[in-house]
Formats: sequence, C-alpha cells, structure tokens
Amino acid sequence: MTTTASLKQRKAKAPAPRSVSILGATGSIGTSTIDLLLRQPDRYKVEAITAQRNVEALAKAAIALNAKFAAVAEPDKLSALKDALAGTGISAGAGESAVIEAAARPADWIMASISGAAGLAPTMAAVERGASVAIANKECLVCAGGLFMRRAAARNTTILPVDSEHNALFQAMAAGLRGDVRRLILTASGGPFRTWTADAINAASPEQALKHPNWSMGAKVTIDSATLMNKGLELIEAHHLFQMPAASIDAYVHPQSIVHGIVEFRDGSFIAQLGAPDMRIPISHCLGWPDRIDEPARRLTLEEMSSLTFEAPDLVRFPALRLAREVIEAGGAAPTILNAANEVAVAEFLDRRLGFAAIPALVEATLNEAARTGMVNEPASVEEALAIDKTARSMASALLPVVSKG
Amino acid sequence: MTTTASLKQRKAKAPAPRSVSILGATGSIGTSTIDLLLRQPDRYKVEAITAQRNVEALAKAAIALNAKFAAVAEPDKLSALKDALAGTGISAGAGESAVIEAAARPADWIMASISGAAGLAPTMAAVERGASVAIANKECLVCAGGLFMRRAAARNTTILPVDSEHNALFQAMAAGLRGDVRRLILTASGGPFRTWTADAINAASPEQALKHPNWSMGAKVTIDSATLMNKGLELIEAHHLFQMPAASIDAYVHPQSIVHGIVEFRDGSFIAQLGAPDMRIPISHCLGWPDRIDEPARRLTLEEMSSLTFEAPDLVRFPALRLAREVIEAGGAAPTILNAANEVAVAEFLDRRLGFAAIPALVEATLNEAARTGMVNEPASVEEALAIDKTARSMASALLPVVSKG
Repeated sequence: MTTTASLKQRKAKAPAPRSVSILGATGSIGTSTIDLLLRQPDRYKVEAITAQRNVEALAKAAIALNAKFAAVAEPDKLSALKDALAGTGISAGAGESAVIEAAARPADWIMASISGAAGLAPTMAAVERGASVAIANKECLVCAGGLFMRRAAARNTTILPVDSEHNALFQAMAAGLRGDVRRLILTASGGPFRTWTADAINAASPEQALKHPNWSMGAKVTIDSATLMNKGLELIEAHHLFQMPAASIDAYVHPQSIVHGIVEFRDGSFIAQLGAPDMRIPISHCLGWPDRIDEPARRLTLEEMSSLTFEAPDLVRFPALRLAREVIEAGGAAPTILNAANEVAVAEFLDRRLGFAAIPALVEATLNEAARTGMVNEPASVEEALAIDKTARSMASALLPVVSKG
Repeated sequence: MTTTASLKQRKAKAPAPRSVSILGATGSIGTSTIDLLLRQPDRYKVEAITAQRNVEALAKAAIALNAKFAAVAEPDKLSALKDALAGTGISAGAGESAVIEAAARPADWIMASISGAAGLAPTMAAVERGASVAIANKECLVCAGGLFMRRAAARNTTILPVDSEHNALFQAMAAGLRGDVRRLILTASGGPFRTWTADAINAASPEQALKHPNWSMGAKVTIDSATLMNKGLELIEAHHLFQMPAASIDAYVHPQSIVHGIVEFRDGSFIAQLGAPDMRIPISHCLGWPDRIDEPARRLTLEEMSSLTFEAPDLVRFPALRLAREVIEAGGAAPTILNAANEVAVAEFLDRRLGFAAIPALVEATLNEAARTGMVNEPASVEEALAIDKTARSMASALLPVVSKG
C-alpha cells in the first residue's frame, strides 16, 4: 500500500527528489504550489510548467524552479518565451500540443490547475501518464467525471483533490475504510445572500453578488458561490471522486468556512476536517501526501473555532443544489450541460442581461431542452465533452430571451 | 499491517468468528459490549466474561453469549455462580486469580472495563496476553500508563481506547501519519459550573455538582467532570496512549459534547470526530476496528450540530487541569498520587466533609507532600502502582484537616 511504502521511504535519510510538473503555473493555485516547492527546493525537481499567456511570469517561475520545460498555451507567444528563457537551458514550447506534451512528460506528481475547459485535454494527458495528479480543475470532474475516474483507475493514477471541500473529505475518509462511509457532507459558506429573502435575491445586482464573505476568488466562482451553484458543481465532483450516489452527499451551510468537509461512517462517527480558509493547506496536503508539509499557512485559532454553525440549505431560494442532485441522478450528458448553461448564465448576469434568479432558471431550461432533443449520452472522450459543452452553450444562448422574459 | 490484513479478511465470504472476552461484563460498558455482540452472534465467540459481584447478571450474560468461562471477583460467590451455571457447560471461577485467568485466556479481542484499581491486574494480564485490548479502565493509564504502554509495545498488543475523547483522537489520528501530529485537543463539557463564579463554585454542594449536562455517569466521574479533574485524568491518559508531551495536548471547553476530540496535523489540518454523546459509538468502534459496525446508536442530527462552541478552560476556577499538566511533566509517581488523592477528596466532598474548591487543593497538597518525602519513582509493576496508590491515600487523608481549614 502507498502509505506503508511512504513510511519506509521516510525512514531513509535523504529521499530522492520528487519530480513534479505544474499545469497552469501562473494562476493562484499554481503560484501557491510554486511557493511551496521553493520552500524545500532539495525535495523536488521540476519537470514542466505551463501557462496560458503570461510569458513573463512563466519564464520567471521556470527559472526559479529550474524546470526542464516550459510551455505557453497561446501559439504566438513562442518567440517571446524563447527570448525570456535564452541561456537558461530550459526548453520552450507553445500551443495546445506543447501544453499536452508538458502534461505527458514523466513526473511523480502533477498539479493540474489550468482553469476552465482548456484544462480538460492537458489534465487527461496527465491522468493517462499515471502517478499522482492533484486536480484543481473543476471541469474535468463536472463535465467528464466518469471518464476521468475510469481512466485514472485504468492507469492506476492517484487523484488528489485540491478543492478545500474535497480535500477535506479525502482527508477525513482516511480515518476509516471506504466501504464504511455512509455519507459525505460538503460545507458551503452560503454566500452573500444566505439571509436574504427570495425577492431581494431576485433583484440582486452583480456588485452585491460579487461580495463573498470568506474567500477571495474570481468573478465566475464568486457568482457561483452566491447562487450555490458552486456547491452544486462540488456535489457532482464529490460524486465522481468518491463514487457516492447523490443521496449520500449533502451540503450544509456553514457560514464560518472553518469546517471544510465531513464524512459520516456507518457507526455514527462523523470525521471532519477543519482549517484556516487558506488554499495553501489543501494544496500542501496534495503535494505532501501521504506525508504533510509544515505550516503552509497560519494555524487555525481557538477564536475562529469559537462558534461553528451548520444549517440545511434552502433549496427554494437556491435551486442550484436541487439541479445538481438531479443531474447526478440523470448522469450521461446532464452535468456537462448544467456546467455549460451555468457559464452562459453567469456571463449574462455579469453583463446585466439576466437577473440573478434567472441563472438557475436558464440552467434548468437548458437541461430540459437538451433532454427533449435527446442530448443524453455521457461523453466518452474529452472531445465529446467539449462538443456537448459547445452545443449546450448555444442552446442556453438561444433560450436566453425565453428565460429573461419569464 | 493490520488494516491490509483486515481488508483481505473482509473479502472472504464468511470470516472465522472472532474470539472475545469481557472483563467487567455487568457495568455499563460491559453491558453495551454484550448488546453489540448479541446483534451479530455469528461473528463472535465468547471466551470469558467477569464481574465483581453480580452473579445473577454475570450468569445470565454468560449463558446468552455462550461463554466458555465466567469469573466473579468476590471469592465467596463461587457456589452461587456454579449453581446459576449448572447444566450449561460454562466453567465457573471466583476470586482475583479467576478474573486474571479470564483475562489471560486466548482471545482476539478483550474489553477491559473493570472500573477502579481492581482493573489494574486483570487488564495487565490481558495486555501481556497480546492481541487487541479495548481499555475502558482509567486507572491503568493514569496510575501506570508508562508501564502499560511499554508492556503493550513489548507484546505487540493493540490498545484501543474506549473513552469517547480518546477514541475520537484515535479515529482522527488515522487521517494522517503519526509523525505529522502536532497537537491533540480533548473536548470537555465544562461541567455544571462552567459559567459559575469562583465564589459560587467554592460553595457548591454535592447535589449541584452531581448534575452533569450531557452524560449520565456514576457519582465519582460526575464530580470529576465538575472539577474538570476528569479532563485532567484524560490529559494524562492521552499523554500515554499517544506518546505526546503535555505541551502538545490541550483541552477545549465544548458544552454541546458533539465534537469528542480533535487532532491537529503540522500542515494546519484539524481532524475532528463528532458523534451523538452515546458510549455505544466508541465501544462499537473498538469492537469493529478497523472495520465499523452498523448504527450502534442513533445518528447525530443536523440540529445537534447547529451550533458548536469552543472556549479555553479557566485554569483559575478549575485548577485540576493545571495539576494534570504538572503531573505529566513531573512524571514518575506523580500521576498515581494525583489520582489517589483525588479519589479521597471526592469521597470526602460527597460525604460533606470537604468543600468543592478543597478537592484540587487536597490533591495539590498531597502531590507536594509526596514530592517532599521523596515518593517520586514511576511504578515498575502493578503491585508498585497499587502500593503508591495506598500510601498516597493515607497521605491525603492525613492532610484533610489542614486543607479543610485552609
């Protein structure tokens, strides 16, 4: 077993450095990962790092990490990257194929933190390569979770969840045997509208929705947090990651964001993971696993734990959670469609062309339309998932006038 | 490793029944253990059970469990036990040696739930026998913890903690590697005087102290819960069970008694065990370990979790916790002396010969007197632990007039 092997490894005086790659090195997860690697440079050797377009930051990171290979996704950035790496001995590549090459290079551990649909193909390349893949890309599990988990199982790849909630569940699950798990509980901050009336929520502006109480994140994720669709997407991810049915996964509203996830075992023991709301903790857990890394972030204080509250989410004011459960149960293409329709809806809301309550309404209308037109089969490849995503986006856009009126 | 072996065992269709013994079968822990065994009679075969004096209950249990051997601690109860077991084929024994014989008989799992000093020798016999021993007897770890843990290590005996707090820590610890544990946090209900002023606590009557908010227990334990000495004894137990220094073990006041223990790992992850305040959960965890047993008690509800609070204990109003830390740091005979003096003090308090605040005062005075007279060496055997206990009780009784005046 991995744990036993690692225990033996720890006893050795100076273990061989672990080879690691970072897909999406210039985003917030990638940057935090680099900070952790640079704290213990002797323990890691960096194989490859990638970025979407920020050549300057990519080159700087590649040099600091002494990476072997750096790839930028935008093809026309090749010469800029080559210039920035001139004389360093670090190879440069550009375009989607170079990013996939980076993912497929041999590494013991890969951080897959390219955001959005662009992360699908490179993350799949990493999963197909084998070893340990820390997944921070939501779309892999939401849009093609069955596919990803089957490929990981076939290649004996260890999937390490980076999301604070799934990482918490992963940690808590280790306190027992997998077969004894009865229920998973994801916690949700409840977002800025937790205590608002349905009418007030319906009239909410983008500015109001963008005020997240506990975590600092991008606009899309923050809106998802206000609709609770973020938690809905996490239910779908948890379903795939831990192979649990929708009925065995709950979300509890926990405004303090101190308890990140709870596993209920069949003997009535609930095992919870708590920590400061800082992504460096789950990132370090994935990087160190099964060991742990010393103080990646400040310690949780007794004062922060002084009062922890939990309540059931209101599925009437926040229909996203209901929709997420329904797509888990429907399976097939439904989760991919939900995700695509939600992306369209959030963009329209941010552009003030759609009201807040119309976000889940557009998602539901798109799901119904897709079911009506027979768009039901589970994607069997990344290409199929991307094709479903594209069709569902068109479908959602076409439904916009209907939903915004209604 | 045990976990791997057990996983393999689970895959087999019908595993061989596990042989178990119960030392102290008629108390509340023993009775709950029997209930769990009778729920799955095919999975267990009962080797031996014992009781202090209740022959009727012992014989009834022995027959229900189809035990091979039953022993009663009081020697003059032999003929009564023989009569009660006549024609059943169950062997009967009486006296301390018969109880030790029961403990030393081969069994895969032994519940050591004889309470008080009487549990020391039989539990040691079980530990020396090897296999898995579920320890519900506080005195073993408080009065001779170093000795017990060294013997368990030498005999490769697995010690399973039955106390809800230590069981919670044992469960939570499995979420990581032992070397990555930074701190243990035991939770305390805070007892009936949690919000009382120091003056009100000083004047508290036995009736007031006997009202425990969450758990129904015996008088001694309930008073210990009111002084927080119960938590102090648990700090000592945790120190031995998990080999952690006093500085790495904290107690947090958590009046809801839903979170039973928290392990802090060095990466800032806190892993907590929560559950309904029902001893059948930790008992079943010890019995099933590393598997788990289905619903030994009702499930924790969201309502019970709705508001969980934590605060630092007040060491001025509750000096017992400070004394416990001091005896862990002092080591040697000090924990044994603390326990003996506390037993004397609680009995005197219940008999209204000592005020509530004088309980920790008598303990502290006895510790000082013992140190002054050179009673410092750690007991090297159960006999030595019992001798220290006896001397400390005399010392505490002799100090009574001094403390009750002061």
